[in-house]
Amino acid sequence: MIYLDNNATTRPLPEVLIAVAGTLAEQWANPSSKHPAGQAARSVLAAARAEVGGLFGALPAEVVFTSSATESNAQALHAALAVPGAPRRLVISAIEHSGLREAARALAGQGVEVCVLPVDGRGVIRAAVLPALLQEGAALVSVMAANNETGVIQPVGEIVRLAQAVGVPVHVDATQLAGRLPIDFAALGARFVSASAHKLHGPKGIGVLLVKKGAPFTPLFPGSQERRRRGGTENLPGIAGFAVAARLARVYLASGDEMARQAAMRDALEAGLGEALPGLRVFGAGVPRLPNTSCLAFGALDAEIVLMRLEKAGICASSGSACSAGATDPSHVLLAMGVSEAEARAAVRFSLGRDTTPRDIATVIDTLRSSLAPLLVDALAA
Amino acid sequence: MIYLDNNATTRPLPEVLIAVAGTLAEQWANPSSKHPAGQAARSVLAAARAEVGGLFGALPAEVVFTSSATESNAQALHAALAVPGAPRRLVISAIEHSGLREAARALAGQGVEVCVLPVDGRGVIRAAVLPALLQEGAALVSVMAANNETGVIQPVGEIVRLAQAVGVPVHVDATQLAGRLPIDFAALGARFVSASAHKLHGPKGIGVLLVKKGAPFTPLFPGSQERRRRGGTENLPGIAGFAVAARLARVYLASGDEMARQAAMRDALEAGLGEALPGLRVFGAGVPRLPNTSCLAFGALDAEIVLMRLEKAGICASSGSACSAGATDPSHVLLAMGVSEAEARAAVRFSLGRDTTPRDIATVIDTLRSSLAPLLVDALAA
Repeated sequence: MIYLDNNATTRPLPEVLIAVAGTLAEQWANPSSKHPAGQAARSVLAAARAEVGGLFGALPAEVVFTSSATESNAQALHAALAVPGAPRRLVISAIEHSGLREAARALAGQGVEVCVLPVDGRGVIRAAVLPALLQEGAALVSVMAANNETGVIQPVGEIVRLAQAVGVPVHVDATQLAGRLPIDFAALGARFVSASAHKLHGPKGIGVLLVKKGAPFTPLFPGSQERRRRGGTENLPGIAGFAVAARLARVYLASGDEMARQAAMRDALEAGLGEALPGLRVFGAGVPRLPNTSCLAFGALDAEIVLMRLEKAGICASSGSACSAGATDPSHVLLAMGVSEAEARAAVRFSLGRDTTPRDIATVIDTLRSSLAPLLVDALAA
Repeated sequence: MIYLDNNATTRPLPEVLIAVAGTLAEQWANPSSKHPAGQAARSVLAAARAEVGGLFGALPAEVVFTSSATESNAQALHAALAVPGAPRRLVISAIEHSGLREAARALAGQGVEVCVLPVDGRGVIRAAVLPALLQEGAALVSVMAANNETGVIQPVGEIVRLAQAVGVPVHVDATQLAGRLPIDFAALGARFVSASAHKLHGPKGIGVLLVKKGAPFTPLFPGSQERRRRGGTENLPGIAGFAVAARLARVYLASGDEMARQAAMRDALEAGLGEALPGLRVFGAGVPRLPNTSCLAFGALDAEIVLMRLEKAGICASSGSACSAGATDPSHVLLAMGVSEAEARAAVRFSLGRDTTPRDIATVIDTLRSSLAPLLVDALAA
């Protein structure tokens, strides 16, 4: 199998597997228990908290472990709206993840006004529009750091500056950026940052919400754990696995070699396909993107046709997000970029990872050249 | 180590460890992905859902995987209150878990009236009071199936009948009962049942909320997963581990031998300590309790003294719940039973498990006899 769907999820590292299994086997006591077994589990928790915080430049006390980025996202909206006196108003971008969009929609059903920050044709959030949207205030601005479908990196620094200028806190969904590019929670100035372990070769079922020190906070579900910010016995095996994944992601980020390697392969993929096939379109071309992500349309060929050819060759890619509600709906991200419905239905996402090799990329190019060229030539001739 | 804190958490079974590690290693794709790797993960999810539903006599479609019983509990309250036209009123018992109590308290802060169903001196919920509390209606009645501190089994069947008679749905927190005694979701008639894998030798970080087929439901955090009842990529390793733990719990429950074995050891512990030490009190004595749970007071000796002696001998027990908010607060469960503050501070909980042996019990009796008898004799003489 050639797995080019790393934005959907990544393969857990062997070191992560060992950490999860080791914690299950050895540190299975409840970290809230006062006996020595419980206190040993609590030490594992504390060390993991520092490690995960370290990946983001956050203090250990700013780390709230959740079950997923989706939970983190919903929790950030909830906490911002629960601040006494907060306006019943949210600003989110047009390209947020479907989980966050649905959380915002549910809040809209409760009378919260949800304003949408548009993107340009390349998929970049139009930060310049933000001041106008914030004239009547807002409880929160929520934006992605990098889009899951196009990989386009968003101007979150600028968005935070503009929001802070009028006293509005910002939530950054860093799920796709985390572990792929550096992020510094202290320098960024956002109140909240969300991420998920399974997007950076950690286990599923564990996410994080970074919460700026001193920020007001109301839990989505309360309890004594996580400094009273999230109830429920801690998922210690998942947390220990997240910590190892975070530590190894820092190693990768420190050198930058791995991300340069992925970017080179991604560029080779786009160049190779562009040479081989007429009518290739690269969404988000010309603006900074995650080094691993390529969102392409092969003329007007429906994505399902392309994915079927890939599947026959043992290659996993995807059409847009794995998490979109309606499988057959065209991507809201691409539509927000002004792409037509037909072209949005043609979009295929390749997301590379640490396991990807140049040979994989050559196989993808060969496979698509031989299987799609006849279809595309016919289409052009028609 | 002699671990007698199985109501705080249980040791994951070796089979669970293998399932978690195997899923991490082999089935790490996103179950929402349409490629073959994703569909293989989806099959694991479907099989696990049937297995966990099977432990509770629930349909696969009634199973919503969550991150913990605490999340399940908060979700049940949220869903009940979100039903259009539902009264802004909850009934909970006086002995609910602190996570659920805090969720109810947070809702009270939002204007929801929270009525408390009292317990008698033995720790049994006074179901007969329920009709009076429901005269003005309620969105939900939420009660435990068995208490985590005393092990006292609650009259949930009667509570469901009384609530159903006036059209009020019921949530049963079966976290401590699940895997220890049979529970039949279909026969019970409750709208919601909560449980957690780590209380039945499964992994931490995975829980379940059973939702009666056809019941209205509003997610705590939305998304496309879990039939749109919970967003976020599924914790497949945790879910696979839960399924194995559920399957093995069914095997244990089918014979009943293991629970009889634990009950015999628990009775021997209480009898042995009663013979050896003056002034022993057994909370919940004389009413049906979980076979593994014993909540005791040694005269007026503070629990911390008893636990310290146990700890020196390598024995883990606890004073009340691991999850209570203030470590030094006396148990709200015992206070609700009319126990004095001083005696509540004396309460020590022993919760046996599948690993417990008769030799462990003999060691506990010997340890406490030799270390506490002098203190208790002095106290009686004073």
